[in-house]
Amino acid sequence: MKIMSINAGSSSLKFSLFDMTTEEVLISGLFERIGIEASCYTLKYKGDKIKVETDLPDHSVAVKILLEKLIELEVISTLEEIEGVGHRIVHGGDKYTESVMVTDEVVDDIIRFSDFAPLHNPAHAICIKAFREVLPKTPMVVVFDTAFHQTIEKSRFLYPVPYSWYENYHVRKYGAHGTSHRYIATKVAEELGRDDLSIISCHLGNGGSITAIKNGKCVDTSMGFTPHAGIMMGTRSGDIDVSIVPYVMEKEGKSASEIMNDLNKKSGFLGISELSSDSRDIEDGIKEGNEKCILAEEMFVNSVVKYIAQYYVLLGKVDAICFTAGIGENSVDARLEIVEKLACLGIKLDIEKNNVRGKFAKISSDDSTVEMYVVPTNEELMIAKDTMDIINK
Amino acid sequence: MKIMSINAGSSSLKFSLFDMTTEEVLISGLFERIGIEASCYTLKYKGDKIKVETDLPDHSVAVKILLEKLIELEVISTLEEIEGVGHRIVHGGDKYTESVMVTDEVVDDIIRFSDFAPLHNPAHAICIKAFREVLPKTPMVVVFDTAFHQTIEKSRFLYPVPYSWYENYHVRKYGAHGTSHRYIATKVAEELGRDDLSIISCHLGNGGSITAIKNGKCVDTSMGFTPHAGIMMGTRSGDIDVSIVPYVMEKEGKSASEIMNDLNKKSGFLGISELSSDSRDIEDGIKEGNEKCILAEEMFVNSVVKYIAQYYVLLGKVDAICFTAGIGENSVDARLEIVEKLACLGIKLDIEKNNVRGKFAKISSDDSTVEMYVVPTNEELMIAKDTMDIINK
Repeated sequence: MKIMSINAGSSSLKFSLFDMTTEEVLISGLFERIGIEASCYTLKYKGDKIKVETDLPDHSVAVKILLEKLIELEVISTLEEIEGVGHRIVHGGDKYTESVMVTDEVVDDIIRFSDFAPLHNPAHAICIKAFREVLPKTPMVVVFDTAFHQTIEKSRFLYPVPYSWYENYHVRKYGAHGTSHRYIATKVAEELGRDDLSIISCHLGNGGSITAIKNGKCVDTSMGFTPHAGIMMGTRSGDIDVSIVPYVMEKEGKSASEIMNDLNKKSGFLGISELSSDSRDIEDGIKEGNEKCILAEEMFVNSVVKYIAQYYVLLGKVDAICFTAGIGENSVDARLEIVEKLACLGIKLDIEKNNVRGKFAKISSDDSTVEMYVVPTNEELMIAKDTMDIINK
Repeated sequence: MKIMSINAGSSSLKFSLFDMTTEEVLISGLFERIGIEASCYTLKYKGDKIKVETDLPDHSVAVKILLEKLIELEVISTLEEIEGVGHRIVHGGDKYTESVMVTDEVVDDIIRFSDFAPLHNPAHAICIKAFREVLPKTPMVVVFDTAFHQTIEKSRFLYPVPYSWYENYHVRKYGAHGTSHRYIATKVAEELGRDDLSIISCHLGNGGSITAIKNGKCVDTSMGFTPHAGIMMGTRSGDIDVSIVPYVMEKEGKSASEIMNDLNKKSGFLGISELSSDSRDIEDGIKEGNEKCILAEEMFVNSVVKYIAQYYVLLGKVDAICFTAGIGENSVDARLEIVEKLACLGIKLDIEKNNVRGKFAKISSDDSTVEMYVVPTNEELMIAKDTMDIINK
């Protein structure tokens, strides 16, 4: 069974075609700068990387090229071989608690929730429509990044703001990275052969979030109404005193949305280091003794530790702390610095085992009170699995 | 030695006159609605409460009446008997790390820092000037509510925002309630006869903040750039996703400062319960089964537990958790609900001992991993002590 996993942005389209028997990726690729000049696409197939510069006026054109290429490269012989397409959707509001089959109503809902994800949801809807035009008979599924967090209880998803903001405008915690956290929870449960685990899942990438998971269900998460909240990130500040907004608006003569742009795109690692949003550049800076890089790393580590501490107490008993995404999977140093600050809880790394990058590994010491794992995330596979499961129902 | 402790707001003036030999309050009082119609003052003296309605056009008039009353009631026979006046100052920027003698420069600084405390600092300056006019020879001291937090290290007082906001506009964590937290730390150190304590001080009142203290010095605190951040409060939201601001601005057609007003005055207990900002009303509501009151209390407790968890891990080893201010000193239930959620750390209440209000008491069980205390705060005495110490130097 071949399933396509799709992740569309406002000007991009990422895909992976899975053979679900082996969970192997047959071909993957990225269409970039859709609707902008200098657009191109890249395919990864049988160890080769093919890059083509071509005009991509809209998502429909990208989808048509993608499907033509699959036949041309003989990945498939007819389009019917693709038995399902799964689309990642950033925001499902508070309506969608799990992945569902695409219907007209679902597409309308995705457009309706654009308020919460103005850059992503409209693009998702456009991309779904493009696929439905070319593959009118292929079943399609949507996998919401917010769905996993819908099990958070009300006293944790509400903000202490006027209650009418929740009733009238749906202001509440939605969280993000749900597909990744769900993958981590599923993978660790499989590996340990248990489904009663309490897990703190640390998705630390350019964007980052930390989630407390009990028996496979999300109990709380660090991202909030939007993916801006929570830990410090590449260019996002994460949690700050909200009073900073009107104060800097006045100082710089900027609008609230201009300040939000600064907080989303010029903050985090980039804001403090004044060098880069990429944690690898920050680590290089630290080696050169760059004080602002050292400061940025300390602040990042502190922000992660704050959430691990909260969720440790919230869960009561923690079986596993998992590290995933760019920093979580690859930064030996960041994991070390984070775990050093958890010593008072009896949580300890095995320094040797921690010297690992990008593959599943246990990294805690044998006498650690909590087991720790590096777990490479795989949102694409999670989307493909959901798609297969729903189609086979 | 008689010392006056002063706490002035934009339209109020609170005072206590201490006999520092016994630390006894000789007389205390409150001038209200200064500069507004229907102004009045209340004095508490020898068990009596005297309330007088009179015109109070400005702080100078209030100060004059106050001093006249002290002589009229024979609390003092001459003004010279007041050997010092200590003024509480909400904001000392990042310049003042401790209490200092009042000079012209200090008054100018207080005015200069008004940007950070627009309602309070200008009133403090006016009130200091009024006292200096009437008591030109009496030494005066200012006690900054932010000073105690100046020992927080840079990686904890900075926000992950553009670094220039710190350099150009002094955007950083300042904290608040410093005088209260310092009093708690001093009092507990005295009671336990140790100065090497690690303490989590929970000031839970209509405003609330939680501070991590090590060896008498502040390590971190929940309030931030302003007293809006941190735990949920009577009418303040505390920490929220900053993206809520531009979102609700657009929905309600309000300015950023109107939204900040909602977040400061219509949120917290009041926002969720839609009933009251006073935790006593919330507790009454809970007894009547009011669901929004139950929700508000749960959210409050969760927000407190989050900070205790963070500071537990930050301090590494905690000797005492202290509860102070209106809720902290008096709400048996709130303390119970908070500590129940700390069970996984081995932290336990003694239910009998916890049945205490407004007096110093140990409330932890004998087998609790951390001792817990109710410690009535006394910012007025702390101000008077600082004043005496600086005068006697």
